[in-house]
Amino acid sequence: MSDPELAIDAERFRRSFETYFAIGATENDGLHRLALSDADATVRDQFVADLEALDLAVTIDEMGNVFGRREGSDPDADPVLIGSHLDSQPYGGRYDGQLGVLVALETLRAMDDSGIETTRPVEIVNWTNEEGSRFENPMLGSGVFTGNVDLEAAYDLRDEEGNRFVDELERIGYRGETPCEPRPLHAFVELHVEQGPILETHGNAVGIVEGIFGIAWLEATIEGHADHAGPTPMHARTDALAAAASAIDEIEALPSHLSADAVATVGRLNVEPNSVNVIPSRVEFTIDVRSYDDAIVDTAVERAIAEVETASERIGADATVEELWRIPHTDFSPTVCETAAAAAEAVGVRAERMVSGAGHDAKYLNDVTDAAMLFVPSADGITHNEAEFTPWDDCVAGARAFAETTLRLAA
Amino acid sequence: MSDPELAIDAERFRRSFETYFAIGATENDGLHRLALSDADATVRDQFVADLEALDLAVTIDEMGNVFGRREGSDPDADPVLIGSHLDSQPYGGRYDGQLGVLVALETLRAMDDSGIETTRPVEIVNWTNEEGSRFENPMLGSGVFTGNVDLEAAYDLRDEEGNRFVDELERIGYRGETPCEPRPLHAFVELHVEQGPILETHGNAVGIVEGIFGIAWLEATIEGHADHAGPTPMHARTDALAAAASAIDEIEALPSHLSADAVATVGRLNVEPNSVNVIPSRVEFTIDVRSYDDAIVDTAVERAIAEVETASERIGADATVEELWRIPHTDFSPTVCETAAAAAEAVGVRAERMVSGAGHDAKYLNDVTDAAMLFVPSADGITHNEAEFTPWDDCVAGARAFAETTLRLAA
Repeated sequence: MSDPELAIDAERFRRSFETYFAIGATENDGLHRLALSDADATVRDQFVADLEALDLAVTIDEMGNVFGRREGSDPDADPVLIGSHLDSQPYGGRYDGQLGVLVALETLRAMDDSGIETTRPVEIVNWTNEEGSRFENPMLGSGVFTGNVDLEAAYDLRDEEGNRFVDELERIGYRGETPCEPRPLHAFVELHVEQGPILETHGNAVGIVEGIFGIAWLEATIEGHADHAGPTPMHARTDALAAAASAIDEIEALPSHLSADAVATVGRLNVEPNSVNVIPSRVEFTIDVRSYDDAIVDTAVERAIAEVETASERIGADATVEELWRIPHTDFSPTVCETAAAAAEAVGVRAERMVSGAGHDAKYLNDVTDAAMLFVPSADGITHNEAEFTPWDDCVAGARAFAETTLRLAA
Repeated sequence: MSDPELAIDAERFRRSFETYFAIGATENDGLHRLALSDADATVRDQFVADLEALDLAVTIDEMGNVFGRREGSDPDADPVLIGSHLDSQPYGGRYDGQLGVLVALETLRAMDDSGIETTRPVEIVNWTNEEGSRFENPMLGSGVFTGNVDLEAAYDLRDEEGNRFVDELERIGYRGETPCEPRPLHAFVELHVEQGPILETHGNAVGIVEGIFGIAWLEATIEGHADHAGPTPMHARTDALAAAASAIDEIEALPSHLSADAVATVGRLNVEPNSVNVIPSRVEFTIDVRSYDDAIVDTAVERAIAEVETASERIGADATVEELWRIPHTDFSPTVCETAAAAAEAVGVRAERMVSGAGHDAKYLNDVTDAAMLFVPSADGITHNEAEFTPWDDCVAGARAFAETTLRLAA
């Protein structure tokens, strides 16, 4: 006979969700809480206060990653790490990241309620700058923690206004002294919203995530020539936006020639001088390509670069394409996936195995420990959007499966 | 035997050019002097001081248009108005607008040098917000002056930061009390850089401008759906930028199907939320179409709208296209053109007849008086660009032809 299930307090969980959500909430019920913004500082203060209220040992590392440690009975055992991120997209949703932190927080509170002592320590974490929308290297805090990103390179990143990452970290008071580096961990588990339509379509409350797509981010720059939109004949123009439009048109069509799972997105594009009657002299845009098959990502990158070059050469513009970021696909720990699947079954939550098109901190954590993720549904698959929504029952079901998974890993 | 030529002081003219150019100069020898900015206020102060030094009667109207009046011998005669504009593109050149104001100023100074008394009064003018790059209605000051634009509508225009035109006019101290409305004028003449390659190609120092292209400005908005760039399959996307890129690709090709002189330009484009891993939910972009044949402009507008709608419908996005501005083509006054051509010949400056692809304040003035323009060459046809350049000899030749034209109109 198994032990009784850890009791999630759905009401307390909901109150915390509303408290956190209010920090950086937008008019349209979305979230605007960019990494190292004032709103990020406020939500971090709330998080630290909540950890201290649970008598956890709080540490803040050089990257501003915030940890809270609950000791286990074996002082020599490696801890189970749980958590996600509190930063958001510019106009993102309420669930992305934040839900995973609050599910981890509710798990620790429920352990205290029941007076449970685990064998292993359990640590909760909020990773810095997961989104990468302000400082364009996503999963930055976990990237440095796992040795995938150099600390100084992270510190030197700048946002669009030219603010350095390290200066902003200092400004909000979260540049800690604990070294940000790998240390022994027993496992890492992260709950997150799916950000796609699969769980909802299948009517499942939880996804056991077995892996993550390979991802490449490129930045293309096309240099044309500014001229007056009136007296400059069409044949005398070097219009950077004309070349960019032609390239983007082709890039959007690339996935259909590659695989069923491949995706390509031009998400950010800026025009100079951006004036109605001036021929654009310079266009910068990003290209995001993904597939579970790393060879497909390689091919997509090659072809995207070729499209930018071809479109630019056709009109005599100069083009450069820089690789901003690249990660191969991830296979998560089969052991942690098995544990999560068994935990979901034990608490009676319908779950299915799946892979993730989105990158997550768990991707990097998998390099230094056994990692996996739990997903909960996203209504209509909508995410990175203020309308992002997960039914509350699914949040609670996810929390129950997550708490049981944590308990089993730490037992 | 004709009178001797009015003597342009090339050295004084050059010093003024350098003084004015320094106000808002960019690192790359261009000009950043947006309408009603602090730099615009400074250059206006310089202009007013220069007018006062010539003992001209200075008036500032409700739109901030600045006039300086030099009386003639006949107190009842309608004045000859000369001038151009002192505002610039965000990163524009040194010659666009400013040269025409300084040529007019040098003409008045040269009249004083020679103790010339004209029969008619001569007035110099600096028109407010010709560029339309900050407040997106170009030729705004002359538009209100000629009854083409409503004063209140002009006052209510907002820049990208949401600042109202009238508040900015007040802020820089140039909201005058003189009504901005049509009044009797004998003629208007404006010197400007060609902003195209024709004069340079033909080796002529001056163009006698007989007309201006018809122009239409549209603003297209495509509304798609923000989603995560990873887990959202290609078929489940409504990517506003994908639709925009497809439409722009077609719009750039439109002129080749219309006429030899037609041009189409997408100069300004903004993406929301503009984040590397978010599918664009909204794209706004402008379309500028021009031809000397108004029917061609009509057709280009219809086809451009159809391209935006087709590209949007194809992916299920919503599209709206708003007309921001439309002016028919202009035929300038044959009398003023004849006078200018005779003046150029009299002072020995090589001139040719031409039309302008760019709009100018003279376009509106032609509605209320006899108007025409003189062009001087633009090296390589480059304009609306920091590299804009007119050889100084051509500036002086233009000033000589312009002064003689003014003298003949006012004699």
